[in-house]
Amino acid sequence: MNPSRAELAGTPDPPYVAVIFTSIRAGEEDDGYSTTDTAMSRLATRQPGYLGVDSAREQIGITVSYWRDEASARSWKQVAGHTVAQRRGRERWYSDYRVHIAHVVRAYGPHDDARDGVPD
Amino acid sequence: MNPSRAELAGTPDPPYVAVIFTSIRAGEEDDGYSTTDTAMSRLATRQPGYLGVDSAREQIGITVSYWRDEASARSWKQVAGHTVAQRRGRERWYSDYRVHIAHVVRAYGPHDDARDGVPD
Repeated sequence: MNPSRAELAGTPDPPYVAVIFTSIRAGEEDDGYSTTDTAMSRLATRQPGYLGVDSAREQIGITVSYWRDEASARSWKQVAGHTVAQRRGRERWYSDYRVHIAHVVRAYGPHDDARDGVPD
Repeated sequence: MNPSRAELAGTPDPPYVAVIFTSIRAGEEDDGYSTTDTAMSRLATRQPGYLGVDSAREQIGITVSYWRDEASARSWKQVAGHTVAQRRGRERWYSDYRVHIAHVVRAYGPHDDARDGVPD
């Protein structure tokens, strides 16, 4: 789920839901991973309640997807094509992974954070 | 904040707090970034309430740090050395960034997620 250009997800004012997916690839071989990754990325953008995604991979991969609420995040988990990809992920692509479902309560960027030492 | 080996943060059972920091580097030049990044990573592990961190950088950087509660996450934001690094981040290293503070309500891995289509 790499963005084609460097841009951060533009999320609305909280509250909303973040699904933090961290993973370690099982090996170097692609084995259909990239194609599925791209397809899932596109499929996610078409789901109700999808707000955006941030993704990077180095030694580990991190994909944070943002959703309007828990119901929309859960619906995406159950989308048919996505459940197939999840199963392949478990069986082939990842040696380990973790999913954290979290409620975003505050968010800020450079323009909201000009002073040091001030609680966010 | 790259881990020296590929391992995912070992977080306890929820609830706890995740601070999702996404960023875009301003340029290719290091300009003290790596040294500070490593130092901050080490400093964070010594803060009260620190639970772990996951980090990766590709087109964008994502660092998710996990904290016992909001108070410990906020204290880390205000640690002296860290506020200096935050200021340099804004002024030199990042062309853009976003901080999302989120309450983790559920978390699971491969061993908890063996069946498809089951709500997490």
